[in-house]
Amino acid sequence: MKTNFKLAVCQMKVEEDKKQNITKALEMIKKSAKNKSDMVILPEMFNCPYDNSKFAEYAETKDNSNTLNAISNAAKKYGVYIIAGSIPELNNEKIYNSSFTFDKNGEIIGIYRKIHLFDIDIPNKITFKESDVLTAGNKITVIKTDFCKIGIGICYDIRFPEILRLMTLKGAELIVIPGAFNMITGPAHWETLIRSRAIDNQVYVVAASPAQNKNLSYVGYGNSMIVEPWGNILARANSKEEIIYSEIDLSYINEIREELPLLKNIRNDIYEIREK
Amino acid sequence: MKTNFKLAVCQMKVEEDKKQNITKALEMIKKSAKNKSDMVILPEMFNCPYDNSKFAEYAETKDNSNTLNAISNAAKKYGVYIIAGSIPELNNEKIYNSSFTFDKNGEIIGIYRKIHLFDIDIPNKITFKESDVLTAGNKITVIKTDFCKIGIGICYDIRFPEILRLMTLKGAELIVIPGAFNMITGPAHWETLIRSRAIDNQVYVVAASPAQNKNLSYVGYGNSMIVEPWGNILARANSKEEIIYSEIDLSYINEIREELPLLKNIRNDIYEIREK
Repeated sequence: MKTNFKLAVCQMKVEEDKKQNITKALEMIKKSAKNKSDMVILPEMFNCPYDNSKFAEYAETKDNSNTLNAISNAAKKYGVYIIAGSIPELNNEKIYNSSFTFDKNGEIIGIYRKIHLFDIDIPNKITFKESDVLTAGNKITVIKTDFCKIGIGICYDIRFPEILRLMTLKGAELIVIPGAFNMITGPAHWETLIRSRAIDNQVYVVAASPAQNKNLSYVGYGNSMIVEPWGNILARANSKEEIIYSEIDLSYINEIREELPLLKNIRNDIYEIREK
Repeated sequence: MKTNFKLAVCQMKVEEDKKQNITKALEMIKKSAKNKSDMVILPEMFNCPYDNSKFAEYAETKDNSNTLNAISNAAKKYGVYIIAGSIPELNNEKIYNSSFTFDKNGEIIGIYRKIHLFDIDIPNKITFKESDVLTAGNKITVIKTDFCKIGIGICYDIRFPEILRLMTLKGAELIVIPGAFNMITGPAHWETLIRSRAIDNQVYVVAASPAQNKNLSYVGYGNSMIVEPWGNILARANSKEEIIYSEIDLSYINEIREELPLLKNIRNDIYEIREK
């Protein structure tokens, strides 16, 4: 396995128009590939405004999806891995917030359906209830690639240290979180959570947000970032549309884990996190 | 139960001399009580330099301890709860890093022995192996008080989200971490970990460090802080000796948990943290 590779995170500005969103994603993937990225990451709900009233209309089934076909073709054309943020996925008459990962041949090598649905109600500030429209997934997901194993979580999932720990124990060395925190939770929690998950698990954590778009009902925070296993931020976007890049050095994970052997020091004799 | 109370965190400068350390602790407790604190918190190893070569010499047994007797008397005299940071405790010929909690009558109402011993080896920066000298405790500890239940962890324990989650699930609304991060791990991780544990568990988290003392072999980072359940820092010390204070409003915990129902959204059907 190669232990070094280059990551691109596309903080795209998601708009109302689905076709336009797909076109934008393809342009950003092309540019990322031109800049010698090995892996390209898109944000949560990259083809659809993050809005309960839109998910049913924008949803696609895996086997008949314009969005996924376009991404698959791009992965193959440019020879890059693509972690396709998420889209509203229709499956057995239910809608999921689903992340599809493609290998360099354009094959789907992993599907993750968001486990923790986002229900928040802060009076006069922000109210959103994903569970009104979406169905929750049930499977913690770690995907094998040529570089390393990758754990996928979506947005609200990052608030549950349990699943990031379980991904790590399953061998994930990179955890990717497509996520759209908002203008309340973003400034309050986004950076702290991303950095602390990296520090706790001594893994790379990458969070991919849409750019801020004040024309939409729900405004994503932006501030996509790539964080290394000691907790330092390697690359960070601001609020606008842009691509951020970083080299990932997997050998650094072992270095950090030898210096501070956190995972060895877990007291499995006293407590245990387990998957059911 | 009263839902509001005042906390004091004594960021004392620990010196070589044990007697002097005890005297200093008593002075700071007195001052905290004068300032109408209901609960006073001392730092990790407040009577002893944080140094493997000192722990055996400074260790005391619970039933014959000048340090604990002095603290007990102060709790009674001033009518305050005291979470007495930690001391090296001799118990059955073993030495523990132990935190004793006293009620307003000076009675010991909880003993916590550090579960995760701190072993770090960053070449040319910091090397410390607690496990060479200390024995690890085995019991996650939540203590009942007139105000709320309090979880206790010591320093390195904060790096393990598992035990703070378990304390929360056992009803802790305040988690107290006497801890001496150093001049490498402090700037890198201290604030991020404290704030993220508060955000994840929607509890108050208080971290009590000794002040920086460059005359000792191990220099604590200072920066003691009191963080509320949304992750904001209510009070923060810098590097020097000082007492920081904050009002604790337990009703705010419920408010936050209603707005963002994290603990209800834990997917116990998919994963579980359990105590063995």
